[in-house]
Amino acid sequence: MKPVRAFLDNIAVVLHRPHFPENIGAAARAAKNMGIRRLIVVDPLDCDLTRILKMATHAAEDVVATMEIYDNLREALGSFQYIIGTTARTGSQRRTIMDPRDIARRVVSISRTNKTALLFGPENRGLANRELKYCHALVTIPTSQEFASLNLAQAVMIMTYEIFRAAEQPPESFTPKLATSFELEAMYDHLQETLAKIHFVNPENPEYWMRSLRRFFSRIGLQAREVKIIRGICRQIEWYGEKMAFEAVRQVRAQDKGIDSISCLD
Amino acid sequence: MKPVRAFLDNIAVVLHRPHFPENIGAAARAAKNMGIRRLIVVDPLDCDLTRILKMATHAAEDVVATMEIYDNLREALGSFQYIIGTTARTGSQRRTIMDPRDIARRVVSISRTNKTALLFGPENRGLANRELKYCHALVTIPTSQEFASLNLAQAVMIMTYEIFRAAEQPPESFTPKLATSFELEAMYDHLQETLAKIHFVNPENPEYWMRSLRRFFSRIGLQAREVKIIRGICRQIEWYGEKMAFEAVRQVRAQDKGIDSISCLD
Repeated sequence: MKPVRAFLDNIAVVLHRPHFPENIGAAARAAKNMGIRRLIVVDPLDCDLTRILKMATHAAEDVVATMEIYDNLREALGSFQYIIGTTARTGSQRRTIMDPRDIARRVVSISRTNKTALLFGPENRGLANRELKYCHALVTIPTSQEFASLNLAQAVMIMTYEIFRAAEQPPESFTPKLATSFELEAMYDHLQETLAKIHFVNPENPEYWMRSLRRFFSRIGLQAREVKIIRGICRQIEWYGEKMAFEAVRQVRAQDKGIDSISCLD
Repeated sequence: MKPVRAFLDNIAVVLHRPHFPENIGAAARAAKNMGIRRLIVVDPLDCDLTRILKMATHAAEDVVATMEIYDNLREALGSFQYIIGTTARTGSQRRTIMDPRDIARRVVSISRTNKTALLFGPENRGLANRELKYCHALVTIPTSQEFASLNLAQAVMIMTYEIFRAAEQPPESFTPKLATSFELEAMYDHLQETLAKIHFVNPENPEYWMRSLRRFFSRIGLQAREVKIIRGICRQIEWYGEKMAFEAVRQVRAQDKGIDSISCLD
């Protein structure tokens, strides 16, 4: 057995709206089994520590003790540079769905320089599209067609197990440091505002184009510097609009003044 | 997603002395997720169906409904031709410990013609040596060195997941039909008796050599025909002993008679 790799400290398990404290505890145990110690819980329905700790067992107490609890997902994911969403749904999404083994190899490479989140949805319905939009990659755990719904902690087990196993393989090529979700989301807000302003997207229904843009940027994997460039372009577009408005007003005013002076001459 | 392969019907999850009904239910669900529907429980501490079904969920109800319950392990394993024992212990055993991924590939090949059991021990201590002796192969799920103890149902999840994944790969070479555990155990009993008779093993402590013989035969993978041959040899050894005894007695009797007749002649 090889020692726990340092990069595992860059990986967190994020549970969005878990219903049962037992699943939080079992997920903590599974993560700890595979050397992952950071657990984030977003808007849990019930966070009964006794029930959590019963399933976590004594050995994963530290994971529960340092568990972070957030009210909303966007905030919880803010500091992460790479977010992997788990989903059993393959129909509705038009995005590429990856295999746990392939994504695990990518995670080993990316997490050396980037905070990486493994995001899991609620027990009853999984992650909705509005939650999957934060993700850079989607993964589906292969199952029997008869019964595809895995228990939450079981899904955590398989994903963390695959990552632990992938660490035994030589890593893929070096991945540069990516922008955080906080930086990305602020960029998307900015971009949406700008694109609405220039009437590239319909302000009443901006989602269609924004989804495409998210998919495009997620596939590339933006770095912080590139996020700054895109926001710079947005600012310049706004500046341009304002400048055009200002110039137009000045011109009109100049014309008005001319007319005025003409009228004064009368 | 590919259809459930027929060979998965030849695989059973066997839980030896599970303590918590929730783990039985969660194991049933995990197995069903990966297309395995046969669940055997041996001497469970608590078999509360309500608690089992809560974790199994509606979708794995059929696995629980057809679950087989046995009093003793030997009987439970009787009909299986290939038995894989899961163990976290690597120190005490001098047998080769396999990786879940490697054993999964072997299972895909073997289970096409052989009933295969995945054997899991009790939550608190795992499988003891007296239980591991039934196994043809041992497997340890790799974990962080810090915390190696997996939840029972989580271990079932990983093993069944690996087998399901291995089914997607082209199978290894063909494996012939092996002897059942029932046939093997009867052979080992017979062998031990015979070896004690010929003073190859100490009747007070036959375990040392018997363990070596089990390891040897497990590695080979005996077929039913070969088991018959070995038992045939045992029978012949006994026959030989009896024959030697009989002849010796006859000879002595003949001598006695000779002596008698001589004495009669006196």
